Amino acid sequence: MHVTIDAERLWESLMAMAEIGPTQHGGSCRLALTDEDAAGRRRLIEWCEALGCTWRVDRVGNLFIRRAGRRDDLDPVATGSHLDTQPRGGRFDGVLGVLAGLEVFRTLDERGIVTERPLELVVWTNEEGSRFAPAMVASGTYAGEFSVESTLAREDRDGVTLGAALEASGFAGGMAVGEPRLDSFFELHIEQGPVLEAAGESIGVVAGVQGMRWYDVSLDGQAAHAGPTPMRLRRDALAAAARLIDRLQSHALGDARGDTKVTFGCLDIVQGSRNVIPGETRLTVDLRHVDETELDALEQRFERELAACGEVFGVTTRFERIWKSPVVHFDAACVEAVEAATRTRGFSYRRLLSGAGHDSVYVSRVAPTAMIFVPCRDGISHNEAEYASPEHCARGCQVLADTLLARANGYATEAL
Amino acid sequence: MHVTIDAERLWESLMAMAEIGPTQHGGSCRLALTDEDAAGRRRLIEWCEALGCTWRVDRVGNLFIRRAGRRDDLDPVATGSHLDTQPRGGRFDGVLGVLAGLEVFRTLDERGIVTERPLELVVWTNEEGSRFAPAMVASGTYAGEFSVESTLAREDRDGVTLGAALEASGFAGGMAVGEPRLDSFFELHIEQGPVLEAAGESIGVVAGVQGMRWYDVSLDGQAAHAGPTPMRLRRDALAAAARLIDRLQSHALGDARGDTKVTFGCLDIVQGSRNVIPGETRLTVDLRHVDETELDALEQRFERELAACGEVFGVTTRFERIWKSPVVHFDAACVEAVEAATRTRGFSYRRLLSGAGHDSVYVSRVAPTAMIFVPCRDGISHNEAEYASPEHCARGCQVLADTLLARANGYATEAL
Repeated sequence: MHVTIDAERLWESLMAMAEIGPTQHGGSCRLALTDEDAAGRRRLIEWCEALGCTWRVDRVGNLFIRRAGRRDDLDPVATGSHLDTQPRGGRFDGVLGVLAGLEVFRTLDERGIVTERPLELVVWTNEEGSRFAPAMVASGTYAGEFSVESTLAREDRDGVTLGAALEASGFAGGMAVGEPRLDSFFELHIEQGPVLEAAGESIGVVAGVQGMRWYDVSLDGQAAHAGPTPMRLRRDALAAAARLIDRLQSHALGDARGDTKVTFGCLDIVQGSRNVIPGETRLTVDLRHVDETELDALEQRFERELAACGEVFGVTTRFERIWKSPVVHFDAACVEAVEAATRTRGFSYRRLLSGAGHDSVYVSRVAPTAMIFVPCRDGISHNEAEYASPEHCARGCQVLADTLLARANGYATEAL
Repeated sequence: MHVTIDAERLWESLMAMAEIGPTQHGGSCRLALTDEDAAGRRRLIEWCEALGCTWRVDRVGNLFIRRAGRRDDLDPVATGSHLDTQPRGGRFDGVLGVLAGLEVFRTLDERGIVTERPLELVVWTNEEGSRFAPAMVASGTYAGEFSVESTLAREDRDGVTLGAALEASGFAGGMAVGEPRLDSFFELHIEQGPVLEAAGESIGVVAGVQGMRWYDVSLDGQAAHAGPTPMRLRRDALAAAARLIDRLQSHALGDARGDTKVTFGCLDIVQGSRNVIPGETRLTVDLRHVDETELDALEQRFERELAACGEVFGVTTRFERIWKSPVVHFDAACVEAVEAATRTRGFSYRRLLSGAGHDSVYVSRVAPTAMIFVPCRDGISHNEAEYASPEHCARGCQVLADTLLARANGYATEAL
């Protein structure tokens, strides 16, 4: 069974959604559970109700829009993402995954196709974390990572709880969190990185998510006057930090497969002064790898190098691991289904692991999951300049349609 | 002719001066031309008047206290330093040089010795630069580096001019700046570094001052999400800065003579965030060397390494040299006189170049000059914990006495 999605209609719906909460430079601002976010959701519901879909909202505001199947006693095959944005976000991050689901529904509707399993289009609440920390809190609650009570009690900067914001938005639902169970979940998303664009590929078959670990590092040496203090008597905290950074950068760059990532996002010299040797330096470290064992080894290398750099420069070092997110492997059958659909369509693609977090990470704990990436210009997201071409959006949506259809009808995507 | 200074009396005068503007943890606060600074000067004047000395003040507040010689038509042999301190300064920085001069006067007085040339004890105004920038502004004015008008117009943080502060302090003198001409100038000072202490030496024979150059560096790469951005597609401004720092540190540490110094005192990541690759980094660079030609080469190496690091990491680099202070060589005969006096006394010593600026740097432009250093504990100064032992203060004062006496009487210090 072949269906072809309508690329132009998909683009029009993306542009129409972007008119809700527009920003000065062409982006979108729909912070979670604000009037704009609620208006975006209502627009989506109107579009879906016109297709005869029904919808429910769970207690943390996750919105489930169902397209009935022949066997409504079976768990639905689901897709979706989020409609909330960063304060100055783009038109594609999250939105594409939701409106591609809508486009699949519309395509099936005009062809009069009813799938065996029902389909479910999900809008997860507060994915961005810009209004309520942490990010992905509502898909995390769905997956059992957070309690409903703790999620409802999260506060924004003005002290408004997520629960109160839900009530105000009209999206405080009554469905138990964790309902409905999903047969599977497929999320289309922009890559938010430069890999596909650089390789000239249309589709990323996302097999999982990199493991990540965060550290706070402190280096304590001895502040001293730059003029009279000989190099060999110094205890320069910045010198030790710089060597650590350079060593780990070199190590990561030396990984020919490109699976190792190290990032030092913040570095502060305590009471730094132009002619004073830095006595105290603070540093953040972000280590990522696609393989958990290799990530362990990377962590050990970091510890070793830190100790060695401290030793060489006479600097006392300490570190604390403040966050650890293991490597996530998506469901093999789901990933294979996406890859087969992509291959069948003849789209250039690669398998990859997501470097960023997504709702799919939590959902994958309770349902077989995979993701589909499409390139975005210059790898830029969380920015009004975020852009994915109509062609790439359409290809991603087509792969999603083929994958959902095959899964919901119980045949392999190769058979399309 | 032998004289022996009174170590105990010197120490008592140091401790007495520290009672003017005491700080909580045993240091001193006598910011330039405040009531405390003026009280310190008046105390010194009282002590000197008791010895029959006369005094004059020039238009920028430099205080000249004269001990008459047999030939008052000749230019005086001078010593001195400063009495102003940092906001939480110590009891020795500057003060030792002034009170050692007083101790020499007292020693000569009790022995009834009149030198051939007159002696002059000088207190330079605002050496620290803590109240009025820049440091050493009044000795600089004496040496012709700054005009009297510009110096009097310098403002402190409250908008009070140096001229107004002089009037308020009672030390707005009438003597032309540049008067009196000096036969020579010898300044005793704590080292403000760890070299002498580490080597177990009592005296530093200061042959000059290192050259120094200051730079502002900016590195512009591309901020991007740490997760999805492969190492090879990054333009990490901090990575480039870290390599630059490590390369130049290694170069300086590789200088077996220890003549090369590099310091990176400030480093800022613009809008740094834990999981964002640094797009923009600012860095200060302080390069020092005892040899001007080698300092030129060091500057060229810095430029080369900066360009290379930028190239490797795809980062645009810019730098601006914001200050250049050439290597200063003190007068060979004056340095030799100090060394001969030290040797004759049998004190352990080394010749060295000062890493910090001193009034002597400016004075050396208009009069033959040398300096004497004594060790200070842990190399610490500009700090309430600053400490020089009574023995070291006494040895420095003894070398100063011998040197002044020889110079003022026209014989070599070896002949003492």
